[in-house]
Amino acid sequence: MKQPIGVIDSGVGGLTVASELMRQLPKESIIYLGDTKRCPYGPRPKEEVIQYTMEMVHFLLGKNIKMLVIACNTATAYTLDLLKETLDIPVVGVIQPGARAAITQTRTDEVGVIGTEGTIASQQYPRTLKHIHTDLIVHDLACPAFVPLVEKGIVSGRDAYETVVSTLQPLKKYKNMDTLILGCTHYPMIRDLIQEVMGSTVTIISSGEETAREVSTILGYKKTLYVGNDAPVYQFYTTGDTAIFEMIASRWLEQKIEAVNKIHLTKVKSMD
Amino acid sequence: MKQPIGVIDSGVGGLTVASELMRQLPKESIIYLGDTKRCPYGPRPKEEVIQYTMEMVHFLLGKNIKMLVIACNTATAYTLDLLKETLDIPVVGVIQPGARAAITQTRTDEVGVIGTEGTIASQQYPRTLKHIHTDLIVHDLACPAFVPLVEKGIVSGRDAYETVVSTLQPLKKYKNMDTLILGCTHYPMIRDLIQEVMGSTVTIISSGEETAREVSTILGYKKTLYVGNDAPVYQFYTTGDTAIFEMIASRWLEQKIEAVNKIHLTKVKSMD
Repeated sequence: MKQPIGVIDSGVGGLTVASELMRQLPKESIIYLGDTKRCPYGPRPKEEVIQYTMEMVHFLLGKNIKMLVIACNTATAYTLDLLKETLDIPVVGVIQPGARAAITQTRTDEVGVIGTEGTIASQQYPRTLKHIHTDLIVHDLACPAFVPLVEKGIVSGRDAYETVVSTLQPLKKYKNMDTLILGCTHYPMIRDLIQEVMGSTVTIISSGEETAREVSTILGYKKTLYVGNDAPVYQFYTTGDTAIFEMIASRWLEQKIEAVNKIHLTKVKSMD
Repeated sequence: MKQPIGVIDSGVGGLTVASELMRQLPKESIIYLGDTKRCPYGPRPKEEVIQYTMEMVHFLLGKNIKMLVIACNTATAYTLDLLKETLDIPVVGVIQPGARAAITQTRTDEVGVIGTEGTIASQQYPRTLKHIHTDLIVHDLACPAFVPLVEKGIVSGRDAYETVVSTLQPLKKYKNMDTLILGCTHYPMIRDLIQEVMGSTVTIISSGEETAREVSTILGYKKTLYVGNDAPVYQFYTTGDTAIFEMIASRWLEQKIEAVNKIHLTKVKSMD
């Protein structure tokens, strides 16, 4: 099925998910929409996040997507169940794939989760993990310093290393913890640093990588993988500044991204 | 949803898949059926494998399973598409999950697959891998010596090591191959040996582990995970000798398995 996969995010973070989709599903076309103008969603009230997310979804449904990926932890927490129930196409969020991968990976049944303050406060990761595996021990930690670091492009060197070391310090005491979920779409950009700080006994789970894997699983299950020979088409939309978006997207996707479209989202009255 | 997950295999190999289901989905009940009497399926004609598999499926449908796992490479190759189309419940095979995990894992886009002679001859793994990722380089190798080794319980020590070393020799020349799929449900029992021989630069993918992960994904997607507090129930059926089955199952599942039921499968006229 040649229709594109739709990816929505509050900003640029979901580009790490798009990057993994491109790598793991190289034949699939993708439409990415980042609501950069109203980013971040984390501090916003639940109703507002739902409204903004619905506006993005409505826009992408108009582009005839075959599947929706909510590449934003906050939007996943607030809208995944709702969207799964109301849309005719499959919907995948970023929380469940990382949780499932951690359960597959751990041998000690003791896992860690790091994310933004909003994601950690929402308790969505511990809830999702324990929903499947009640006896799992989960350690979580908010890492508010990481997103600014990544957005400034400071992803290696002494300053970045020192920030990562001091931030992750509270997790180092859990000697039995063998798996750590990167519960924020920005964190894969500093994955190597996090791995170095946590040591080789801890397996790092990137929710973007795992989300792409589950998109592949669901497309396979639904028999909607594209199997033709046309090259994939990638389209990008933002509600904010296109030049900044193009710069970050080109860096993160390691290819020249241009012709990013600026759009204005408006309130959706109903989802018909 | 409290209904059990049904697992079918030509014999005992699928117990490694059942073991992973128990580990990753500790709340789920499982019914396992091994057609030990007519094992192995590999050398049998396609029509016969389809008939035997349908007999197993028919038996488990009578047990009200919520999902079917075909924990047998040969049966997956011949019946997955057919069963996906004819059954109302989700059907998962063992080939696709390992293939998808390899694509997620590889960074060099060069992967290996080992399996029985039948599985390798069927070319199902290369086909599934290239179906998703056309440019992947795939090296495959039949390892006929491994199943007898595992079934005799020789999973460590000098003899086992030497068999693994000499068998895997042809794959050692592919210096760029960074991922190896264990394309046979017996092989996880000698995973450590295979890892040692291939070296730490090669990531080993166990199709059982990955199949359980995808079962979790699909149950989550379909909202049919069991979320109550009852302990899981495990039931085992075999068409062959129950004592041998109990001995192998107890060893592989690392728990005392008894009260295995012996059944006789009969030809299914239609799938109604």
